[in-house]
Amino acid sequence: MNTYQRIVLASRPQGEISPDNFRLETLPVPEIQDGEVLIRNHYLSLDPYMRGRMQDSKSYAEPQPLNATMIGGTVGEIVATKNPRFAVGDQVISMSGWTEMAVSDGSLLRKLDTTHIPLSAYLGAVGMPGLTAWYGLSQIMQPKAGETVVVSAASGAVGSVVGQLARQRGCRVVGIAGGQEKCAYVVNELGFDACIDYKADDWQAALTAATPDGVDALFENVGGAVFDATLTRMNPFGRIALCGMIAGYNGEAVPIQNSRVFLTMRLTMRGFIVSEHMDLWPQGLQELGAQVASGQLKFRESVAQGLAQAPEALIGLLKGRNFGKQLVRLI
Amino acid sequence: MNTYQRIVLASRPQGEISPDNFRLETLPVPEIQDGEVLIRNHYLSLDPYMRGRMQDSKSYAEPQPLNATMIGGTVGEIVATKNPRFAVGDQVISMSGWTEMAVSDGSLLRKLDTTHIPLSAYLGAVGMPGLTAWYGLSQIMQPKAGETVVVSAASGAVGSVVGQLARQRGCRVVGIAGGQEKCAYVVNELGFDACIDYKADDWQAALTAATPDGVDALFENVGGAVFDATLTRMNPFGRIALCGMIAGYNGEAVPIQNSRVFLTMRLTMRGFIVSEHMDLWPQGLQELGAQVASGQLKFRESVAQGLAQAPEALIGLLKGRNFGKQLVRLI
Repeated sequence: MNTYQRIVLASRPQGEISPDNFRLETLPVPEIQDGEVLIRNHYLSLDPYMRGRMQDSKSYAEPQPLNATMIGGTVGEIVATKNPRFAVGDQVISMSGWTEMAVSDGSLLRKLDTTHIPLSAYLGAVGMPGLTAWYGLSQIMQPKAGETVVVSAASGAVGSVVGQLARQRGCRVVGIAGGQEKCAYVVNELGFDACIDYKADDWQAALTAATPDGVDALFENVGGAVFDATLTRMNPFGRIALCGMIAGYNGEAVPIQNSRVFLTMRLTMRGFIVSEHMDLWPQGLQELGAQVASGQLKFRESVAQGLAQAPEALIGLLKGRNFGKQLVRLI
Repeated sequence: MNTYQRIVLASRPQGEISPDNFRLETLPVPEIQDGEVLIRNHYLSLDPYMRGRMQDSKSYAEPQPLNATMIGGTVGEIVATKNPRFAVGDQVISMSGWTEMAVSDGSLLRKLDTTHIPLSAYLGAVGMPGLTAWYGLSQIMQPKAGETVVVSAASGAVGSVVGQLARQRGCRVVGIAGGQEKCAYVVNELGFDACIDYKADDWQAALTAATPDGVDALFENVGGAVFDATLTRMNPFGRIALCGMIAGYNGEAVPIQNSRVFLTMRLTMRGFIVSEHMDLWPQGLQELGAQVASGQLKFRESVAQGLAQAPEALIGLLKGRNFGKQLVRLI
């Protein structure tokens, strides 16, 4: 193989993203220099934050540059090395981006042990999404046994972990997901106490019925009408971990209508980005890794085959078409 | 004096409150029993929270009952006593409500020392409003020297204290108030660095100009458009103490339009009610009392004369017609 493929951002989206915003390129495999390694990526992670980076607007991170490799987390293996820390065959996680191959000086690579944990899980339950869930739950929501926890995007890479961890803490856990199939999975496979299908006509009544004692802590991934409805269920001193507002990722306004609830119920809401709390990653990764290795923490993946499918897969993710962690298989 | 006056809630408001929602009653002065005292109130405190209590809706407190004395904090003196803990002439603070006189068993009375602190200040800077400011600033906003703090309703009983305490901590302090006169007072008398007149046409540009380094902490009393504009100025990890949403006290929707900022700037917002944190009152009252006694902490009062003026004074307070702490003088 003398060439590899990558995808760059070709243009910034106006409203919804389209495949035209991306460009697939074929490049010659580079020669590595002393100290460098060549990585062959096996999986690319697709995540909602990528939508924000495509925009040229003020946010927590710099925008994705045009005509550069799209940002993204990857897992793969070392296929050539001139760095004594890495051997051919080592499995590594990196932020290579949307690319089959990448050169690294090793400084931002982390070796992975796939003896008990599948390689792809390091992009999901034992990776950034899992840590996001763990951080929001343990550091912001801090639910006690017997409290009611609500999780939006409950079948997704983050929400599924939030709910399972909350169940382990003895909470009543109510998920919110799109469609009966996802809700059935959330309850039957992940063990949530209930799941609200926000596409059903009676979702508001169902949310009320599923939270008879109100809501003490909320993990919010979506924003919009369902968030507002959940706010009306909050108990005094409720905590909200604000992780995402996928409902507004195309620039739609997602006003919080029920703002008075923050006052009347003395709520605390905190937006967070897990990459800013790397001091806690070892603790979180150890806990998540042990649970995935033992089978206690379950996860599900949607896998698109081949880098060329990545744009459509990201579009689908933003529309909720994925079912579990969205990956692109690159080999 | 064989009779006294009180005001009861006669009906619940639909939208804006009107004088018709209240009823002034004249009652015979009661005989006190063993263990009781009779209080002659000198000042009644009017506060925005009263508007919420007039509504029969889910909030942090039970609604004000119809045909009962309107809730309210008062300061006055003991005029008769059959309780060994209190002597005639003792000055006390209580939640007597909108009434000239009240009977108490003494359990919820606190004696006041007016040697260095004016009696009325115990309803303002050295009372619940001052404590509200102190709590929000010291426990939620926690600003560091050099940070920028924004305070809405800056000339009011709460906002004026927030800003002065923040200045003492070495912060840049920007107030928001209605009208040039209030803004001049906030800057020239209270020592804020700047004050934005939200009634001026160019208030948004003025807010931007007054916060060249963004906003690190916000004390929010009002909600609505000015709150939304301030959100766009927030810096990463900004803290918002949500104390009131006076813009919505008549039932108007006060949506938070810029909800994405909570995520992109990783903001923390907390609604709070100072009466739920009484463990911290001694610490706060000591600090505030010392500052008022020394003249370091300044305050201003709007005083309506006579209980019959209380309804109009409350209506004015909710419209921002007061200038400083709104009181009703009852003697």
